Amino acid sequence: MKAIIISIGDELLKGHRVNTNAPFIARELGNIGIPVTRIITCSDDPQAIRDSVTLALTEAEAVFVTGGLGPTNDDRTRDAVRALLGRGLALDEPSFERIADYFRRRNRPVTEVMKDQAMVIEGSIAIPNTKGTAPGMIIECAPRFAGRHLVLMPGVPAEMEAMMRLTVVPFFAPLSGAFIRHTPVMTMGIGETQLADMIVEVEDSLPSGTTLAYLPHAAGVSLMVSTSGARREDVDAENRRVVEAIVAKAGRFVYATSEVTLEEVVVNLLLERKLTVAVAESCTGGLLGSRLTDVPGSSGCFLEGLVTYSNQAKVRLLGVDPATIEAHGAVSEPVAKEMARGCLERSGADISVSTTGIAGPGGGTPEKPVGTVCVGIASKLPDGAVRVEAARFVMHGDRHQNKIRFSEAALRGLLVRLKEMEF
Amino acid sequence: MKAIIISIGDELLKGHRVNTNAPFIARELGNIGIPVTRIITCSDDPQAIRDSVTLALTEAEAVFVTGGLGPTNDDRTRDAVRALLGRGLALDEPSFERIADYFRRRNRPVTEVMKDQAMVIEGSIAIPNTKGTAPGMIIECAPRFAGRHLVLMPGVPAEMEAMMRLTVVPFFAPLSGAFIRHTPVMTMGIGETQLADMIVEVEDSLPSGTTLAYLPHAAGVSLMVSTSGARREDVDAENRRVVEAIVAKAGRFVYATSEVTLEEVVVNLLLERKLTVAVAESCTGGLLGSRLTDVPGSSGCFLEGLVTYSNQAKVRLLGVDPATIEAHGAVSEPVAKEMARGCLERSGADISVSTTGIAGPGGGTPEKPVGTVCVGIASKLPDGAVRVEAARFVMHGDRHQNKIRFSEAALRGLLVRLKEMEF
Repeated sequence: MKAIIISIGDELLKGHRVNTNAPFIARELGNIGIPVTRIITCSDDPQAIRDSVTLALTEAEAVFVTGGLGPTNDDRTRDAVRALLGRGLALDEPSFERIADYFRRRNRPVTEVMKDQAMVIEGSIAIPNTKGTAPGMIIECAPRFAGRHLVLMPGVPAEMEAMMRLTVVPFFAPLSGAFIRHTPVMTMGIGETQLADMIVEVEDSLPSGTTLAYLPHAAGVSLMVSTSGARREDVDAENRRVVEAIVAKAGRFVYATSEVTLEEVVVNLLLERKLTVAVAESCTGGLLGSRLTDVPGSSGCFLEGLVTYSNQAKVRLLGVDPATIEAHGAVSEPVAKEMARGCLERSGADISVSTTGIAGPGGGTPEKPVGTVCVGIASKLPDGAVRVEAARFVMHGDRHQNKIRFSEAALRGLLVRLKEMEF
Repeated sequence: MKAIIISIGDELLKGHRVNTNAPFIARELGNIGIPVTRIITCSDDPQAIRDSVTLALTEAEAVFVTGGLGPTNDDRTRDAVRALLGRGLALDEPSFERIADYFRRRNRPVTEVMKDQAMVIEGSIAIPNTKGTAPGMIIECAPRFAGRHLVLMPGVPAEMEAMMRLTVVPFFAPLSGAFIRHTPVMTMGIGETQLADMIVEVEDSLPSGTTLAYLPHAAGVSLMVSTSGARREDVDAENRRVVEAIVAKAGRFVYATSEVTLEEVVVNLLLERKLTVAVAESCTGGLLGSRLTDVPGSSGCFLEGLVTYSNQAKVRLLGVDPATIEAHGAVSEPVAKEMARGCLERSGADISVSTTGIAGPGGGTPEKPVGTVCVGIASKLPDGAVRVEAARFVMHGDRHQNKIRFSEAALRGLLVRLKEMEF
């Protein structure tokens, strides 16, 4: 079974919105062994919708449409598809009850107009909308497109995602007849070319059902190992063999073989070891603290963050010696070390990390170009002493990318030190 | 002239990467009056590329392809298009020189293989690649597709973006024959339905060449007013009239009518007035400081940020009275006020803002559900006294969305106070 995704919406064609629905659907279908062969984005004009749906139903057994379902004027998908298939509408009672209930609870009158939102195309299976009003539809498209399925869902991501997970994936999983296993290999501190060189032997001898994709992101690159086949056990085993071969070659740059962020790995390790952390940021401006506190449960290990943007703040809040700043400049390893040490001692945390750098676009010098960052790490030793180190990196992004890469370098520093710490 | 965009890449079809190239191209084309009628994402299989390009050249006068140009194995666009058009390859000398120079500067040998990257399809205009190696191509597709243009660009966003701006847009602008004006109306603190109610009269009487799109984002909704027509002056005037009509109705929720973020407006206002700011964050974990310091030049107004996640940090770093926390809880307006006041006084800033709330998923109570945030604002009065206020909001997102909305509420508070401040 192959699938085509159709994303409907003028705002997508104008580039005012990035299409995140299609990749979500593609990933969900991939997990149940249904490959997507094409993604089509078209206007919410009825003719364009009919053309795209016709084309897709001609080429693929399953077509997934998002957008243009709902109460506003530019939502025309249902009527366009109804006309194409030559069918009428029927009331979906459960959806009408849900919509009526929604308005009743808000003390707003239930009108006949609302019934329209609960109407589905005749002969379709209504997909309950647990996050909004209009239901989705799974339509078996005989006679014109016999054996083909058309799925209509709203364009609001939360509504579509709930429909996919609760109804659409369970419906299609038994029809797929294939299994796909994707395993991400998350790396840190290594570029695409360097990583490719390191795993060239693995890549050159990939088994036939397995592919390897490089997924560069702002702070580095990750790999996705995808294996497909007819038997789940074979697919899983083959996929695992390739992942293990990659880890054997590039293991020291791999921080996870599942879809987790570096901050999740760091926070979970801290929580597991019952350690506390504090951060002292200059150039990252709070991003490092924000990333750590993005992780649910981080309040169990994150004590505090100090965003010491000005030199005075570095001195007053972290106890950095003005003479150190004078001698080496604010962006320097000695200042990064004093920041980390001051942060550790004043907060009482077990481990601390500091950043001081030049995110750009201004502020660079030949000696310390834009993109320079010094990261300091301080931790308590078993004997009560403090171990402090700093390292310097140069990144090559714009201000926003540099902030992300700086925070990534700091998280990497934390992770490496945490792995070295013995308790 | 109408355009179709083709995005090539298996990683897009698998949902492992979000397609940001297509919206970029669509916006750039929109600015020169070329509407995009369809976006097609297809596999990097040669047959799929040929099928998609053929379909697109049949339907649109200009087709923009990204992906599959470059040295690696899965880059097959050039050969697929060459086969489709029945043309040979020719060396683009300037590109070869650039590539050879790149390797020479890195002390790597210049081989014959590198020449392949500098080969373009016969009869095409080479697009210089200022950010990478392989050149792009603008191809006039006669005889089979007479009068139609095909543009091939790499999938690496930085390379494609530079090509669009330096070569492709200047090439197509004179061919378009239409003008489009997009004006964003950026709002804060108002939901989609409420905003729609407020501007219903404007929306019901839009002139025929103008459309209005709602662009919801994590922290609210913005509008995009798009006008197209044959004469630039008419288009600009009509667009301006609609924007002004919206501002007349919803002005107190509008913070800008250009593509700027709330943090840019706040930072630029601070710089303009020569005021300094400091932030005290609990639930936003550093995100507020990070957003303010995302703005280039923010070091001219941003003094420091204190991420006081724990109660002890609130007491020690901001001087919050433990009795206030005891009496009202850490998430309360009195604590938000003491945080803002302490931050202002200790940092010496002219204005400060604080956040304390429950981002979730845990930590909610019936009285203070997940999504609750208290925002405090403190500022110096001309007589040297300090004005401190706090407000409470409840957001309805997940942890990540709540952090964004909390930081948005804090920025909004800053902006409102800054506008009230007289100096």
